[in-house]
Amino acid sequence: MSQRVQIFDTTLRDGEQVPGCQLTTDEKIVVAKELEKLGVDVIEAGFPISSPGDFRSVVEISKAVRGPVICALSRAVKGDIDAAGEALAYAKYKRIHTGLGSSDIHIQHKFNSTREKIVEQAIAAVKHAKSYVEDVEFYCEDAGRADLAFLAHLVESVIKAGATVVNIPDTTGYCLPHQYGERIKYIFEHASNAHQATISIHCHNDLGLATANTLAGIMNGARQVEVTMNGIGERAGNTSLEEVVMALRVHKELGYETGINTQLLYPTSQMVSKMMRMPVQANKAIVGRNAFAHSSGIHQDGFLKHTLNYEIMSPTDVGVDKSMIVLTARSGRHALKHRLELLGFVFEKPVLDELYKRFLDVADIKKEVNDKDLVELAREAVVA
Amino acid sequence: MSQRVQIFDTTLRDGEQVPGCQLTTDEKIVVAKELEKLGVDVIEAGFPISSPGDFRSVVEISKAVRGPVICALSRAVKGDIDAAGEALAYAKYKRIHTGLGSSDIHIQHKFNSTREKIVEQAIAAVKHAKSYVEDVEFYCEDAGRADLAFLAHLVESVIKAGATVVNIPDTTGYCLPHQYGERIKYIFEHASNAHQATISIHCHNDLGLATANTLAGIMNGARQVEVTMNGIGERAGNTSLEEVVMALRVHKELGYETGINTQLLYPTSQMVSKMMRMPVQANKAIVGRNAFAHSSGIHQDGFLKHTLNYEIMSPTDVGVDKSMIVLTARSGRHALKHRLELLGFVFEKPVLDELYKRFLDVADIKKEVNDKDLVELAREAVVA
Repeated sequence: MSQRVQIFDTTLRDGEQVPGCQLTTDEKIVVAKELEKLGVDVIEAGFPISSPGDFRSVVEISKAVRGPVICALSRAVKGDIDAAGEALAYAKYKRIHTGLGSSDIHIQHKFNSTREKIVEQAIAAVKHAKSYVEDVEFYCEDAGRADLAFLAHLVESVIKAGATVVNIPDTTGYCLPHQYGERIKYIFEHASNAHQATISIHCHNDLGLATANTLAGIMNGARQVEVTMNGIGERAGNTSLEEVVMALRVHKELGYETGINTQLLYPTSQMVSKMMRMPVQANKAIVGRNAFAHSSGIHQDGFLKHTLNYEIMSPTDVGVDKSMIVLTARSGRHALKHRLELLGFVFEKPVLDELYKRFLDVADIKKEVNDKDLVELAREAVVA
Repeated sequence: MSQRVQIFDTTLRDGEQVPGCQLTTDEKIVVAKELEKLGVDVIEAGFPISSPGDFRSVVEISKAVRGPVICALSRAVKGDIDAAGEALAYAKYKRIHTGLGSSDIHIQHKFNSTREKIVEQAIAAVKHAKSYVEDVEFYCEDAGRADLAFLAHLVESVIKAGATVVNIPDTTGYCLPHQYGERIKYIFEHASNAHQATISIHCHNDLGLATANTLAGIMNGARQVEVTMNGIGERAGNTSLEEVVMALRVHKELGYETGINTQLLYPTSQMVSKMMRMPVQANKAIVGRNAFAHSSGIHQDGFLKHTLNYEIMSPTDVGVDKSMIVLTARSGRHALKHRLELLGFVFEKPVLDELYKRFLDVADIKKEVNDKDLVELAREAVVA
């Protein structure tokens, strides 16, 4: 039996606060509906106190999207929580996400507070949020750098106060996977009521480790992951939804599953990229233009012999039509032969050998050889 | 005492075979010289048998770059190795990188061979390469999916035959970090002569785990990492040089160091991106446009109070001028005040409060508020 991991999508909150990615309320509703189709469990729809536009967006998404839980962010202060609670009034399933800094560096330098006062404020915030909704998530900001014993104490306190989900964010993207995994493990071992709530993971990609840290968290007991499409988000971004989902799917031996319809990953990625004006780099894992493209001769040859030689998942699993074969100076005879056949040209070996030499000359000059070039080369060979 | 990790850069080989990234020989020399300045230990300059252009590039880079080891790729066949040996004739420090498939799926479906024959071919290839150069690296292709006992046997055999470096590639980007780390550990425990050679890591990013896998390999004894600038490479790309280097630097407690001048990371990334026509996405770790940009109000406020609140490294460490502050509907009063002060406007609290309301109105409509908009707002406030 696989264990279910909840997908908490924060594309519309942590993702949307990226410079240039801001959406109108109407655009946000479009994205939220696509996320619902994709199969996410929770949609973080905005931070209502931050601006009237954000407040309105949470209201409208609450009305328009009825499947997933709609979540609204707030700091651990009354006004924020009130705004979140009011904005969620129309939601069918609703959650307030409140919290504050848990590391000493945040407690001292950001809040000018003490550990004791932070715990008091956290409990008060959770209790106040409970007056609006049953489902309250608490975030322990900068948990990646927090004192572990204090973190476990804070987690225990907020669960006791009524938190249903506790988020352990690596806010600065600092942790290495084994370190982050150990934090989650420590919480389960030292917060006596940890199993009464869902422990959630929220990682940032500053060192390129967000996906690995998220998987380490799951393997140590967390059952919700906070992610964005294409990994967009503050600075180097959040954990990529598509990477975590496909890593769990490729590694079924771990025994976890999500509710995501993986065949919608690529279309959803493209939609988010276009609407948020944030291009996806060609070599982005899972959803990049080249993610399934085999270009070197060794790889193309091996790939044509047996797709499993170079593919651990099928492009169709994520909604990409087929592996693209692009020809370059590195392409081998087999790749050339295969592509020519797709274009309708079948040659005997001696002709093909001659054609291959001319192909290499063209490829050295042109860098990339397209179908038009190939047809031209092939026609000359037919005539010759 | 920190242990030194060798940086083997394959931007010009594994990176350059990406569709659209092909460079002329002159362009490759420019990139190679920049990589030399950056401080890489080894430059994989090309795959000489694959095309006349590639052969020429290895020859010219060998002449032009005298600091790092120049490495040429070959399959484990005589003709390939001869071409690599000849292309490297002028190199001051030279290495041939030869190898073949080590997983059963590659042995059976790609080579139509047996484990025994693969070991024989591997030994023969290393010995032949040794007739050209002292420094021979052997790659066990698809080691990420290879039978572990066979892999250790293959590693032992090629070291006995004279290999100075053995590369354990996760060719398909399949492994999870703990799995990849265990593979490296197993090799050290079961290949009796593993400590006589350098064990090298070569990961692909198909599941977004290349950097984490590379770090897991280092922590289990590998002392060379094969990486590319910006993580370019086949499909979802290779491990990013900049991510591994900065992860080791931020996590000094691990006790590893590289020879990289980190302040050249950003300029080198930009140069490679431009020359290879491969844009870096805004949220790319370390070198993306937004990697050091704080946009949300909570973050900007915390960041202004104490940069360590949200930064685990300084942008200047990687050659970026300063953290950029971009204002959006999510920006708080503190961020607005700070930016206005940078623009020369200082307001008392009541005026600032009024200005902040109008700023939010503008931000809701305009998505991103630039300096020009702010100056306009500020001037209206001065007049009012």
